[in-house]
This record gives sequence, C-alpha cells and structure tokens, in this order.
Amino acid sequence: MMDLNRRNLMTATIAVGAASLMPSAAKAAAPAAGKQAAGFYRYKVGDIEVTVVTDGANRLPVTDAFVVNVKKEEVNAALTALHMEPGFFIGPYNPIIINNGGKLALFDTGTSEATFATSKGRTGQFMTNLAAAGIDPAAIDTVIISHYHGDHINGLLKADKSLAFPNAEVLVPANEHQYFMDDGEMSRAPKGRIEDVFKNVRRVISGDVLKRLRTYDWDKEVIPGVLAVGTPGHTPGHTSHVVSSGSAKVYVQADVTHAPYLFVRNPGWHAFYDQDPVMAEATRRKVYDMLVAEKMLVQGFHYPFPSVAHVEKSGTGYREIPVAWNPVL
Amino acid sequence: MMDLNRRNLMTATIAVGAASLMPSAAKAAAPAAGKQAAGFYRYKVGDIEVTVVTDGANRLPVTDAFVVNVKKEEVNAALTALHMEPGFFIGPYNPIIINNGGKLALFDTGTSEATFATSKGRTGQFMTNLAAAGIDPAAIDTVIISHYHGDHINGLLKADKSLAFPNAEVLVPANEHQYFMDDGEMSRAPKGRIEDVFKNVRRVISGDVLKRLRTYDWDKEVIPGVLAVGTPGHTPGHTSHVVSSGSAKVYVQADVTHAPYLFVRNPGWHAFYDQDPVMAEATRRKVYDMLVAEKMLVQGFHYPFPSVAHVEKSGTGYREIPVAWNPVL
Repeated sequence: MMDLNRRNLMTATIAVGAASLMPSAAKAAAPAAGKQAAGFYRYKVGDIEVTVVTDGANRLPVTDAFVVNVKKEEVNAALTALHMEPGFFIGPYNPIIINNGGKLALFDTGTSEATFATSKGRTGQFMTNLAAAGIDPAAIDTVIISHYHGDHINGLLKADKSLAFPNAEVLVPANEHQYFMDDGEMSRAPKGRIEDVFKNVRRVISGDVLKRLRTYDWDKEVIPGVLAVGTPGHTPGHTSHVVSSGSAKVYVQADVTHAPYLFVRNPGWHAFYDQDPVMAEATRRKVYDMLVAEKMLVQGFHYPFPSVAHVEKSGTGYREIPVAWNPVL
Repeated sequence: MMDLNRRNLMTATIAVGAASLMPSAAKAAAPAAGKQAAGFYRYKVGDIEVTVVTDGANRLPVTDAFVVNVKKEEVNAALTALHMEPGFFIGPYNPIIINNGGKLALFDTGTSEATFATSKGRTGQFMTNLAAAGIDPAAIDTVIISHYHGDHINGLLKADKSLAFPNAEVLVPANEHQYFMDDGEMSRAPKGRIEDVFKNVRRVISGDVLKRLRTYDWDKEVIPGVLAVGTPGHTPGHTSHVVSSGSAKVYVQADVTHAPYLFVRNPGWHAFYDQDPVMAEATRRKVYDMLVAEKMLVQGFHYPFPSVAHVEKSGTGYREIPVAWNPVL
C-alpha cells in the first residue's frame, strides 16, 4: 500500500497537477491572500529585548564582477547546491531594534522606503514592518550606524526627505565619518565609489541628520549594553557591536559577511562590496574564529530573516546554524 | 585599532554589562513589547498559495524513554552541538493551509487552543495566528488529517468543544480511522496508547466532527493538487501529501520525522512517538532518499517555523536546508 516509488509518484503527481488546473474547478470562498507576513521577530539577550525588522531582500544578477576573485560559474554552482536559483543573488536587509530599558536603539536603517517602488516591493519594507511590530518611529531614541553604505544609512530619510526617526540621535563611527566626509579621500577614490558611496553619504548625512549626529569610537560603550568593535575592510570604519546583558551576548556583525549561504561558507570569496577585500577577509576569519570559539550568537544584517544564528567550522570556512524560531518570547 | 582579542572582548563586555544594569539608567520612552510576532508565512507552489501557521512549540524533558534506542546522554550531546539547551526537547507544531483556487484546505490542526493555558502560551497559538494571517476559520472548506495523534486532531475542537472550523469537511485516512476506531485494536494496545491515543480519538472524532468526516485512500487525489501517500510506521495509517501545481511540488510529510535537528540528522533514532519504530525508520529513509533524489521541497509539521526546507545526505543520515525567508510572496 505504501507507494513511494519515484516513477509512480511522479506520474501520479502530474495527473493531480493536471486535474487541479481544470477550469471547471469551483472557486474557493476565500481569495488568496497574495501577501507575505510582516517580517519581524523578537528575542531576549538577558534583560535586553531585540526586535529584528526586515527591510526585504534584493535580487541581483550574478556576474563575474559580483565575487571579484571567483568566476560566476562557481558562484552559480554554489547557489544550485543550496537549492537557490542560479544566476541571481538574494541579498536580505535586516535592521534590528534593541530596548535596553533606557533606550530604544535602531541598528542601521535599511534601503529606505523610497526603494519600495523601484524594487517592486522587494525592499523598502522597514517602516511598514516596524509599524506591524508596534514600534513608533518617533519612539526610537538612537540610531547606531555600522558604516556608510547606502543600505545602512539611506533609511534615515523618508521618501519625502524628512527624518524617518525624528527624535533620534544618530551615532556613527568616528573614523567612518571622517573618511567618507573627507574631500581628499573622495578625490582619490575610484569613480564607482565616488558616485555610489561618497556622494550618497553627502546626500544623506546632511541637514537635519547632521544636526542630530554624534560620532563614537571603537572599543567604547556606545549606549549601555552596546560595545563598538572595529571590523574594518568592508569599509575603513566598518563597525560591529556586541550587545550584552549579564552573561548573555549577541554579536551584531553588520557586514563582516554578506549573505551567509555564500560568504560564511566561503570566507575567502571577495564580494565587490568589500572596499579592502584582503583586510575584510582577515577581519571575517578573525571574527568567525572568535564566534566559533565563544559559541556566540551572531546577528547578521544580510542573513536571511530573522538573521540570528550560531556558527561552526565547516571545511575551509564556516557554516551558519540558524536559531530555531521561538514562538514565545 | 581593531581589537577582537578574546580576553579583551570578554573583559570589555562584562564591564558594559555591569554598566547597563545600573539602576540609575533612564527609562526608555517605549516599553518592551514583551510578545513574539504572530507566526505565519506564505509561499507559492505553482498557482497554489501555502500559508504556514504555527501552533507554537513544546518543551519536553529529555529522558531515556524519549528516544527509545538511544541514551539521553547522546541526545543531550546532539542538542549541545546544535547550540540548543541540553535536557529539553523543543518540538514545534506547524499546520499549513493551502488555497488551490477551489478549496481552502487546512492540513492537521495543532494541539488545540485549550493547551494555550496548560502550556503557558507555548502551544495552542494556532487560532490567534490564523486570525493574524487574515484567515477566518469559517472559510476553511476542508481539513485534511494525516494521522490520529492528538497534536494533529485536537484543534478540530475549540476550548468550548464546539467545531473550530464549522464549515469544513474533515478528511481522514481510511486505514487510520478504521484502526483507531476498532475496539479490538484498542483492547490489544498497550495501556499508554489506549489512554493517550485511542481514548483521545474517541473524544475528538465524535459528534459534529464525525458527521462532517469522510475517509480517503492512499495513492488517490484528496482534493485537486493533493495526493495522499502512505507513510506508515509512526501510526498504522500515517499519511503524507504531495501538493503540486504544474511542475512545482512540496512534500507535506506530517510526522515522517519529528524535529529535523534530531530526527532528520539521525534517521535511525526511534522517538517514542513512533508506534512501529522499525517500519517508521524504513519509511523515513525511503521518503528522504526520494526527497534528496528529486530535490523536492519538504514541509514538516514538526520542523521549526516556517518549517519548509530542502534536504541533503549528510553522514549516515540527512540534513535539512531551511528555505531562506522570502519577504515577498
């Protein structure tokens, strides 16, 4: 009676598929929902409440320029082995908010709501998912920026260019700010970086944002429970944060790696995003060796939502172990 | 400037942790939310819309009786390696709803809302998460039952014992129904199974439920797009379902395995839930070999939410590859 034979299963399934497409089928009382759930997720780090709020995920073509030291065929082979669509890279964006009892602090902002239209709804979801999570943008006390790439800062501004978080102080790494605001550095940068990063920084980090801005230093506490850790390479002032309460910790890595299915598994791959790929790789291996040794939880901005995992060594690289969704807080 | 040295990181972090606990810290304007997100998730299988709606996850002590052919020390070692708490097994419950354009069909029911109080909110979440997903229980046309264990049927009844899905036909595997409704089988069963399963089946599968009940057979279409596949062992009439539309498919496995982190990784482990553990293991290996060969998506009732994955061979068993959360449908 048990029929799991491959050929029979395939044949039976095709027959069922054909039947289900018959135009004579009665319509369901309920229409399809046609809409994904609002992506937010909560967990505790000691007394600190963390809320992950997704901004969505982009879908970019895989070219030879995507991983600069690896042919696109090798990238596509990895995607196929992961049961992902070859030829396209899915890059998620996942800011977090922490409530440490004293501050409601947002870590990075996502791509901005302006990208919702241009990405056909794939990205720019942060503000609507934040509302679904019951968090008023006006209640955000602090925005802690990891580095000055657009997907981390552009959400500081709404589509109408007003402040997305009108009551928040904006805390940025001092060396990142100094580097990208330096006209001499801009003049020596390659053209692509001038257009995509330097000019974008000057567009966003200006006006009301600049008035609310304060710089912070590595190896110092940014707000209670949040330690800034220098993790340069991706950008010169790229910063990660250790969020801790009592003995509980999570390492908020920002862009130490991009999406783990490619760049945690293959720490030697140099994504085009990394400004200094050799330094970025050295940082990556040092951070991941520490995460493995300490068994420390990692929160990855570009990990798939809810983007919180442990990591283990695997082959010549590492492997992420996503935390199982906890239906209670 | 980059300081990822383990000792320094630990020291710095402890200092920060102490600072964050100072009673003089100002209170945040926003209180902690204190509540997890409603757990539902959507994806498409061809033209069919699937909505996964979690009922929650239980937390059971690991004893030698939990995996009957493995010592609890070995189970706990596996949990530790997975960065999960040793001594406790987290068992999620994840029903799905499909909309095939003709029917809104629920697959299994979860533990029932009555367990919300007894589990301190860990389980019994299905009806509230269904509401969050925008699905009216009265709009469910069909409930397709995989087998007669309580976590799959008890949700047919609300806490007040009325029908949870008042307009739904209840479709059950013919051989499962025959076996568990047979008084002779009950008389020959071990005491625990009489109390936990046979008597519970008679409590739930009665009255209004029985009036709406229709049996279905293996290797036949249950509703358009849904093929019943016999996967016995866990119970005598345990049934899985292949949901398909065009060339797209998902294998809705019910309890071919329990939670994948233990029982997909170790297909030879015999959980106490399996009525005929030898047959259950043979079924499990046959199904998983097929899933690997066909690269077929699997939806697992006891996988962590959203409980949809691919699988690959790993060592002497298999390994699940959770689908990356897709922020758009």
